[in-house]
This record gives sequence, C-alpha cells and structure tokens, in this order.
Amino acid sequence: GVGADNDLYINQAIVFIEDAIQYRSINHRVDSKSLWLYRWYYSRTCQWILSLTITVILALAFVEEPSSLTVTSDVRYRLPAWNPPCGLTESIELLCFLVFMVDVSVKSYLIGWKEFWKNKWLMAYILTLIVSLADWIVSLSFFCKESVRIRRILRPFFLLQNSSMMKKTLKSINSTLPEMASVLLLLAVHLALFTMFAMLLFARTKDNQQDKEWVVYFRNLPDSLTSLLVLLTTANNPDVMIPAYSKNRAYSIFFILFTVLGNLFLMNLLTAIIYNQFRGYLLKSVQSSLFRRRLGIRAAFEVLSSLKETPASAQQSCVSVGALLQVLQKAEMDSRCKQAITRSLKMCSCDQLSAAQFQKLFEELDKDAIKQHPPSPEYQSHFMQKMQFAFSHPCFGYLGNVVALANIISICVVLVMDADKQPSERDDFFLGAINCFFILYYLLEMLLKILAMGLKRYLSYPSNRFDGLLTVILLILEIATFAVYGFPHPGWRPEFMGLLSLWDMVRLVNMLIVFRFLRIIPNMKFMALVVTTLLDLVKNLRAFAGILVVVFYAFAITGIMLFKGAVVPLGNTRGSKAGFPGSCAHISLSSLAALPTQPMTMALCMLSWCSAHFQAGIVYCLLYVLSVHLICRWAKIYFVAWWLISSVIWVNLFVALLLENFIHKWDRRCQRESLSGIEYQRTVELMFRDVLEEPTEEELMEKLHQHPHLQLCR
Amino acid sequence: GVGADNDLYINQAIVFIEDAIQYRSINHRVDSKSLWLYRWYYSRTCQWILSLTITVILALAFVEEPSSLTVTSDVRYRLPAWNPPCGLTESIELLCFLVFMVDVSVKSYLIGWKEFWKNKWLMAYILTLIVSLADWIVSLSFFCKESVRIRRILRPFFLLQNSSMMKKTLKSINSTLPEMASVLLLLAVHLALFTMFAMLLFARTKDNQQDKEWVVYFRNLPDSLTSLLVLLTTANNPDVMIPAYSKNRAYSIFFILFTVLGNLFLMNLLTAIIYNQFRGYLLKSVQSSLFRRRLGIRAAFEVLSSLKETPASAQQSCVSVGALLQVLQKAEMDSRCKQAITRSLKMCSCDQLSAAQFQKLFEELDKDAIKQHPPSPEYQSHFMQKMQFAFSHPCFGYLGNVVALANIISICVVLVMDADKQPSERDDFFLGAINCFFILYYLLEMLLKILAMGLKRYLSYPSNRFDGLLTVILLILEIATFAVYGFPHPGWRPEFMGLLSLWDMVRLVNMLIVFRFLRIIPNMKFMALVVTTLLDLVKNLRAFAGILVVVFYAFAITGIMLFKGAVVPLGNTRGSKAGFPGSCAHISLSSLAALPTQPMTMALCMLSWCSAHFQAGIVYCLLYVLSVHLICRWAKIYFVAWWLISSVIWVNLFVALLLENFIHKWDRRCQRESLSGIEYQRTVELMFRDVLEEPTEEELMEKLHQHPHLQLCR
Repeated sequence: GVGADNDLYINQAIVFIEDAIQYRSINHRVDSKSLWLYRWYYSRTCQWILSLTITVILALAFVEEPSSLTVTSDVRYRLPAWNPPCGLTESIELLCFLVFMVDVSVKSYLIGWKEFWKNKWLMAYILTLIVSLADWIVSLSFFCKESVRIRRILRPFFLLQNSSMMKKTLKSINSTLPEMASVLLLLAVHLALFTMFAMLLFARTKDNQQDKEWVVYFRNLPDSLTSLLVLLTTANNPDVMIPAYSKNRAYSIFFILFTVLGNLFLMNLLTAIIYNQFRGYLLKSVQSSLFRRRLGIRAAFEVLSSLKETPASAQQSCVSVGALLQVLQKAEMDSRCKQAITRSLKMCSCDQLSAAQFQKLFEELDKDAIKQHPPSPEYQSHFMQKMQFAFSHPCFGYLGNVVALANIISICVVLVMDADKQPSERDDFFLGAINCFFILYYLLEMLLKILAMGLKRYLSYPSNRFDGLLTVILLILEIATFAVYGFPHPGWRPEFMGLLSLWDMVRLVNMLIVFRFLRIIPNMKFMALVVTTLLDLVKNLRAFAGILVVVFYAFAITGIMLFKGAVVPLGNTRGSKAGFPGSCAHISLSSLAALPTQPMTMALCMLSWCSAHFQAGIVYCLLYVLSVHLICRWAKIYFVAWWLISSVIWVNLFVALLLENFIHKWDRRCQRESLSGIEYQRTVELMFRDVLEEPTEEELMEKLHQHPHLQLCR
Repeated sequence: GVGADNDLYINQAIVFIEDAIQYRSINHRVDSKSLWLYRWYYSRTCQWILSLTITVILALAFVEEPSSLTVTSDVRYRLPAWNPPCGLTESIELLCFLVFMVDVSVKSYLIGWKEFWKNKWLMAYILTLIVSLADWIVSLSFFCKESVRIRRILRPFFLLQNSSMMKKTLKSINSTLPEMASVLLLLAVHLALFTMFAMLLFARTKDNQQDKEWVVYFRNLPDSLTSLLVLLTTANNPDVMIPAYSKNRAYSIFFILFTVLGNLFLMNLLTAIIYNQFRGYLLKSVQSSLFRRRLGIRAAFEVLSSLKETPASAQQSCVSVGALLQVLQKAEMDSRCKQAITRSLKMCSCDQLSAAQFQKLFEELDKDAIKQHPPSPEYQSHFMQKMQFAFSHPCFGYLGNVVALANIISICVVLVMDADKQPSERDDFFLGAINCFFILYYLLEMLLKILAMGLKRYLSYPSNRFDGLLTVILLILEIATFAVYGFPHPGWRPEFMGLLSLWDMVRLVNMLIVFRFLRIIPNMKFMALVVTTLLDLVKNLRAFAGILVVVFYAFAITGIMLFKGAVVPLGNTRGSKAGFPGSCAHISLSSLAALPTQPMTMALCMLSWCSAHFQAGIVYCLLYVLSVHLICRWAKIYFVAWWLISSVIWVNLFVALLLENFIHKWDRRCQRESLSGIEYQRTVELMFRDVLEEPTEEELMEKLHQHPHLQLCR
C-alpha cells in the first residue's frame, strides 16, 4: 500500500542521511528488512562488539605459549611466564571467529550478490576465515603441540579489513609501490656496484698487517654486502672506514662517494617520491568523503521526493518539510546539528524544498562548531568584582607560569646539588619544604581562578583542566606524604614506610611538577602551532598507525616462528657478570647490527614487548647467536626486510604526511590569526574546506542511477 | 660632440646587453672610462685571476704549520709533514691581499659612492681586509710564532663575497633562521624537560647493582644532557636504554616517548619548515634573474634610442637596426645567439625597432639550444649500408649492455671463488683471459659504431664518449699488462714487475669495467630521470656547497686552534697493538660519540683531510682525551655546534632542495615525454619558463629611472 511505501521511503531517507553523516557508501540493499539489518549492524553496540573482538584476538598473542609479559626482559632473572592450558585461548579464538563469520555474512548480504563478487576485500575476508578455521582444527587435533600456526600471522587482517581509512591508505601506498620499487632497484644496483668495487679495492694482500679492512668487513661477497648495507643505515659508519682510512686517506673517497650517493641522494629521493605521491593524498581522501556526504543527502532527497503526498504536478521534484522533520526526528545525529537544521527549517516559510534548498540545510553538518565558554558569575559586591577582574586577567596566568618556572628551576638546582650524594646522605627537607610551598600556591591559584571564572567556565578550558587535575593529584600526594612521614624539618630522613618510600614520593611529585610545566605551551605562539600540527597529524596518522600495527604484528609472529629456541640465556653459558648487553655490545655495534637507526630500534622495542624472544637487550646477541647457529642468512633477510619496511618506508610516509600537514597549516596561519579570538573545533575536513570542489548535480545523479539496489522513479 | 656621445651610448648598450646575458645588475657607473674599467673587470682574465687568488688563499691551509698532507692518518706511522719556512706562505698571502684590495677598490668605484654606503657586503669586505692585514703584520713581527691567527678564520669570507648566488642563498637561509630558532628552542625545551625526568627516574639507589643506568648515563646534569642529546642523534640509541629496560620493560616508554617526540616529530618539523621556506626559493631566484635580463635589454634600448641619428619626430622611441647591429658585433655573447639575432634582424624588413620588437629579438637568449647531432656518413656500397643499418640500430647497443653485464657477472663469480684464497694461491689466468676477450669485444663495438655513425656523430653522444674513453683506457692497460707480463696462460702467476703488480693491473681493469657498466643508465627510463635530477641538483647546489665549504673551513681552523696539542699518539702511551680505533671504539660508540650520524662523520672526514688534528680514527678518542684533559666542555659545545650546522641544518636544506627539484621534474615528466625525441640543453631558467612572470613595462621603467648613474633623456 501507499502507507507501507511511504514508510519504506522514510526509512531509506533516514539511512541515507545517517550514511551521509558517517561518510559511508550508500551502495547497500534498501528494502525494509535490509534497512533494519543495516541500522542494527552499524549501531554502536554492534560496532563496539566487533572492535572488542578484534582487540581480543590480537591481544591473545600476549598470553599465548611462546610469549611473556614479565617485568624484566633479562632471560636470566625472569620468572617463567604463565602458560594457559590447551583449549583456553583456542575457545576464545573460536568465539572471535564466530563473530567474524556473522560480520562477513551480514556485510555480504547487505551489499548484495552482484557487488560481492567485485569486492576483493570481502573475498579475502572469507578466505582468511576459512584458513584460520582449518588451522584451528589442526591445532586442536594436535592438542596445541603443533609448531606452525598460520592463523596467527593472518590475525592482523581482521583489523585491516574493518577500517575503511586503512584500506584507502593501503591503496595509496600500493599505488606508490612501482616508483618505490624503482628507487629500491637503484639502491640495489648502487649497493651491488659498490660491493664489487669494495671487493676489488680491499682485496687480500700478502701483508697480514695491512688488510684489516678485508678481514673484518670485506672477507667475501655476503660480508661485503652486509657491511655496505649496514653503512647505508649509517649504523657502522665510522668503524667500517677506519682501517682503510688509517692506511691511506684516499680510501675515504670511496666511503664518502658511497654515503653521499646512497644516503644523501637515493634515500632522500625515496622521501621525495613518497611525498610527491602523498601530496594530494589528504585532499583526495577528504574530497571523496565530501562526495559521499553529498550523495547520501541527495539520495535522501530523491527518495523523499517520491513520497506520494507531494503534488505530482510540480515540474521540479521537491520534498515536503513535514516529511523531512519526520526523518530528522528518527535519524541519529549530533544534537547540535539536529537543532540547527530544525530551527532553519522552521524559519523557512515555504512548505516544499527543492534539491538545492535541501542540500543547503544539511550544510550545517560541515560547519565548525564554535565553542562557547559558559559566562563568568556576576558578583554584587564591589570587592568581589575587583577580585574577579584581577584573577581572570591574563597577567595572573603569566604569574602562574613564572611560579611554575621557579619551581622547575629549584628542582633542577636540588638535582644538580644532590647528583653525586649517596642516598643516605640526601636531605629531603629543602625539596620537601619548597614543594610544599609551591603546591600551596598552585592550590591557591586554582581556587582563585574558580572564584573568578566560576567552576563551569574554569573547566571549559582544556589548559585549566590539565592544571587543575595535576594540582589535585599533587595535593593528594603531598597530604599522603605528610600523613605517613610527618611534616618536614631539617635532617628529615625517615625510613621506608607504606607503599612508597619518601624519596619515591618526592620524585613522583617532582615529575608531576615538571609535567605541569607544559601548561606554558599555549602561551607561546609558535609552540602552540607546532603542538596543534602534531595533534592534527596524530588524527590523520591513525590509519598509518593501524597499518604499522598490522606489519608489526605479522613481523613479530613470523620472528617468533622463525627463531624459536634460537636464543638461549648466554649469561649462564658464558658466566659473564655484566650480562649480555655488555658482552655483546662490541660485536653487535661494530659489525652485525643493522639495527641502531632510531625507528628500527624503537620498533624492535615494541616488538620485544610482544614476544619473549625479542628483548632489546638480546636482539643484538640474536644476530650473533644466529650466525653461530648458521641460520644467519634468514635472520639477515628478516632484519633487512624489517629495516626497509619500518625504517625506510614508514618513516618516509610519516615525513611526507608531516610535510603535507605542516605546510597546509603554515599557509593558512595568516588567515587564522585574524580569527584567533574564536576557538574552532577543526577537523581535517574543515581544514581543506576552501580548496574542496563541490560535486555537480550531474555527477551525483549519475552515481545515483548506478546504485545497484535503488530504483529511482524518474 | 655628437660622435663622442654616440660612441658612449653604443658602449653603454654593449655593456647593458652583456649585463643582461650574465644576469648582472646594471647599477654601475656608465661614463666612458668606467665602462672600459667595468668590461675589463668582468673580462675572463680578471675574473679568472680573482678565482685563482681565492683558491690559493684557501689552499694555504694545506701547507701551513699545524696541517699535514700525509698519506696515512695514523699519528704513530706518519712522517712529519713539510713545514714551509716563515715568510713563504706569508708572502703568498700578501700577494692575495693585494689582489683583493684592487678588487674591492674597483668594485667600490664602479658602483659609486652613494651605493657603496648601502652595500654591507663591500664594507665587510674592506673590514675583513683591514683585520687580515693587521693580523698579518702581527704574525710577521712575531716571526710566525704567534698562536692565534684570526685571519685564517676570515679567509672563507673572500670566497663568499665573490659569488652573488652564495650571497643570495645566505640571505634565504638568514630569513629561515627565526623559524629554525623556534624549533631549536622547542628541541632545547624538550631536551631539558626530559633530562629532568630522566634524572628523577634513574636516580641513585641504595642497591649498587640496580643503578647501572645512573652510573653510566645519568650521573649528573651534564652527563644526562649529553646522553639524551646523543640519543637525539640516534648514535647511542639502544645502548642507553638497555640497563633500564632489562630492569623493567616499562622504562622503555620513557625512551620511546623521547625518541618519537624528538626525532620523529621535532627533527622532521625542521625539515618541513626549511622545505616550506625554500619551496619558492628556486622560482624566486630565477624570477629575479629574468628581471635583471629584461632590465638590461630595456636599458640598452633606452640608451640606443637616445642616439642622435634617430628621427626625433617619432612619438614612440625606437632604435635603428644599424646601431643594434653595431652593438651586437662588439658585445660578447654566445655565437649561436648572435647569429640567430642577426639573422632575424636582417629578415625583419623594417628600419626602426620598437621596445617590444627589441625585447622580442633578444628572447633568443632564453631559448633552448636544440642539440643537433652531425649526420651519419653516406656509404655508396650496398654492403656498407647494411652494416651501417645493423650497427646503428638500438639492438646493437642493447647487445653491448648484455655483454657488459656478462662481464660484470664473470668478475663477480671470480671474486666470490677467490674470496678466501691466499694471494699466492690465486690463479689470474681465468680472469685475464676473460677480460682480454671482453675488452676486444668493447673495442670492436666502438670501431663498428664509429664506422656506422662516423667519428663526429659518435662523439656527439655523451654516452659514446664515456664508453669510448673507458674502452681506450682499458685497451692501453691491457696492452701494458701483456707487454710487461706476457700473455696469460694456465698457472700464470708472475712476480712483481714495473709500476704495478699484475694483480693490481687486473684489479684496476676490473674496476674500470664495473665503472663502464654505468652506460646502461640512460637506457632505463626511471634511472635516467633520477640521474638527470641529480645532475640538475648538483648545478643548483653549487651555492649551498660553497657555503658548506665556508663553514667547513671556519670549523676546521677553529678546531685546530682550540684543540692544538690536545691529541697525543695514544698508541705509544698505552702500548696497545690494535691501535686506537680498537681501544677507543667502546668508549666512543657507547657513550661519548655524538658523531656517528652519517653526514657528520662524512663532514669529519673532509675536515680531517684538512687538518692533522682531526683524523677520523682519532676523533673518537679526541672527545675522550679531551674529557680527561678537562677541556671536555668546550669540545662538547664545538661538536654540538658542528652537528647542528652540518647534519641538522645542511642536510635539511639539501632535502628541501631535492624535494623541490624532483617534484618539479616529476610534474613535467609527462609533458617532456612527448618531446623526448629532441634533446634540450636545459638550464634551471628554462625549467621554470612556463611559470615565470614577465616584468611589465612600468616596472622596468621605474627601475630604470631609479638607476643611480644613468640619466635618461625623457
């Protein structure tokens, strides 16, 4: 009937508008039941359950068999980690797989059979699930004693497929690959030619004293390649050239040429290429988001205009205000936007809306939310008004900064004075008394500000929230100290009591005070710019970080499988008291470590956190031990791959994004300075608003007519 | 008289057109004598003498007292360097100063008194000369025994002031300084806060076993600062965190936070800022060059139009063709351009030229020189024509590449097989025979190509010149080998004879063959793009390289003066057989070396080449020795300054320029691909031609009326 049809149209419009708000594609089924399923699938609960499942399945690696979450990383001192019984983690895994199966079937159903065959991500999803389940069955049938677990390497795929941003980013990275491959090929040619040169230059001579270079670095082809590859990471930079250089200064020309060509030119060329590819990346992604939003709204307009209540006589299709109000009421959206749209809808005197008017109404969604702080309280008394003026004046804030600086300096002075003292000689009175005074000042500052601004206004500023929270924590710590150890007096050096020693308490207080000093950041213009750029960057980097997590995870699991049992506590067999780091440092740093470029080691630390076999202290020894165990070549390939992906490619991507973000910010700094009175809650979409192109009516309608499930009346 | 006036105008026009060609400023005196002086000053001989003088005065450091140009850098084995007698280098210096005095007086006279006071560079030049001369007199009166020679540090100034490109670049760098300073301030704040955190976190504890971190890295404020600063250079990256990490994994959070914030964010922010500043740098510089050219041509037009021969009745000022031809004949310019302009002048039927026509004529200067290869010889015989077709076909070139590749592979195989053999066991027969065959093929290839293309056409391709030259050298080497050692036969292992042993000859031949393999580059599209970008970059980097040389020189001289006598041959006092590098490697690499980031060490190598006190092998020990000698703090400041300038700022500048160049190249690759049939001799000016703005007539005339010496008639 007409009523049922109308209900369907209304429901379609609701879903399309929700799609527009969330920047989702509208290419899904649009019959009544599917719409219900669609809204259920994208409801907060469902999405939350899905995210939780992904987190759980990824976190399983922390408790599964070859892993450990112990405090120390030193194999000699570490207690054996807890091993869950066979079947525990496996049953959790099965639960997760069930959720994923529901997820994949709902997704496949919603986009329809025809679209399903075009969607490679969904096919890969199903394939991954099948392989994982098969591996799970094998695992159970071996009573968890099998050595290779393929499904672990596949786990990060579940994270990847759930995020459209990550998929988009991956596509971008994919399109850069051919050019990156060219540069990597160039690097390989560069490396090969220079290796041959090196082997010819530093050949074995008859005089054994003279060929140090040959013995250590260029003994044979793999050694020479490794030496030069490590030189490319700059890890063994001066070491490798010293024997040759001390023989004849002219040998340095070889190394300088290699470093300049490889490091300065080719490596930076990689940066340039990646930056060039990603220059338009943000803009393009925001542009396609905008298109999706406009398309969703247009689709809502089209279905609403097919409602039977509209007069068929009108030449142009249009939508009644009543229907739109009905849709707005039911759609889930930001309450501020909903109010603003309803308001402007009521102000508009007309009864019917054209497509342009309809779009214009929803432009509210794109607008900056102007943040308004609650008003200050109005005091009657003249004295209070003066107080209010004084303590809400910026100068009071500056005074606070000066006091915080003085506190930092006093801590610094005490630290310098106490640096070489034995813990038993330290007198904590001075620092205790000083900190007590400063914390009282901070408390006073907070109270006076609350008095002047009112609690609500005070809390509406992020800097005040940061300040206040730290002040309250400091106060609690100080009170706890006094409660346990009494008031400070000269020679105040109490013994250990309670949870923390006095010394630990004082250190904690000092660290918090140092942390509180960061409140000065918004007061310095350039710092504020940098910090906002960095925060923006973090937002835009989420997709990249996700991909990095995927790569980390896969590498960690592969590493565990490859090098299982290769690391034995060296400390025991060698009996060295200094522990590994000492005993291995020489070998690692001078010849084997392809690692110590910073992002790599950082990555390794995170990696080591995931798996027992990759403690940072051991990873150096690892290569050495592996070379003894003669599986050196695999380890080399593994680490070179790791270096290429984490250090070379990812860091360059990061630099490219940073350049992109910063240059955009910098360009519009001048414009913003004039508006600086108003605080905007800016998003990436808004940052680009003035360069974005609005999609034309024709583009929208063409896309709508291509919709696989929606039959438009006209 | 009128004749003299006309001569003056003609001379002025000649000089203005030469200024336009060389992109020089036209703001100089324009009377007859000054013009003669001006042309003399900018003549090739004069400029060559000036460059020679600058080279000589800079090169003096290589022979002056505390320097050495010995083969080995090892203090223990080195022979004492030659010390020139007092007065020798000093008299050369005086000669140089005299040339500079002439230079500065001519320059000052030519720009005129009024302009002189505005020109800070000239004033600085005079001041430098005065200080240098005073120092020189002091030096001689002490019979060269004085310890401080200020004039040495001032020497690079002479290089700086002679290049307008370098002055312009310095101005650009100068304008970036405030923003760089902001980031450096941020870095300093970051470092200070984290140092305080570190000192609080890794404080001395009662348990001596537990505070390894404190003992080695965070003993007091200077130590902590140094540790974290070195961590920022990533030199001590994993070492510094291992003791803390093996105590508790959570400590790694501190180091990861520090590295991510400092290295990944702040350091890359510096790149972004510098790139942002230099984005327009090339374009702006090319734009101002264009303005100078147009201005020079316009000035020539204006003076020529004041010639008495032109009819005064004409409303618009114009220039007679005859006068222009006269000017063209006398002006020094590229013969191709001169011919082209004369030709189009003769083709133009008119007798008088308007300003626009005049400018248009000289646009020939901006045009690409289309490189035309001489034609191939035309053979009569049918056989020869077939031969010509076959050997000028690209396939023949590809075959040559394949043969070169085969040669490389054969060398590689021999190298791998011989890697571990004693020199006495090596059989050079195989390699000798193979190389003999390949070199014969190369010779044949060269001869056939010359036959097919004719010698002139063959030599007109740079790749052929490269090929041919190497083939000839290889041939000579091979003939020399056979002449000295006879033909190779199995078991061919002759003793040492002549200048080089057979083994050295073979190695040299192999290296040349590896080098010859680079001929494949132009055949690979992407490689060719990269190589042309790099070559362009080298052209644009000349100014930067000059500034780098200035900084290097100043640093080297300062270092010599600061650390004179601080380095003593440690090998003697310690008696270690391994030499310094071994004995110092541990100390340096784990804690003291703020150096091993690559550009820094590279720089240090160049530095070490300049001065005896900075051998790369010793520089590590240096810091250690200095810290023992308690002048550690100065050394630290010196090296930190060095790191900031050479590694941080210069490398970032380099990256910025590379990005700029590469992105421009990449953008217009598509356009060029269609034209790839024609080889252009492209310059930077031409690269930007389609984005440059032509200066308007008003701008030009306004500038001309501001000319301090030229009085235009109207």
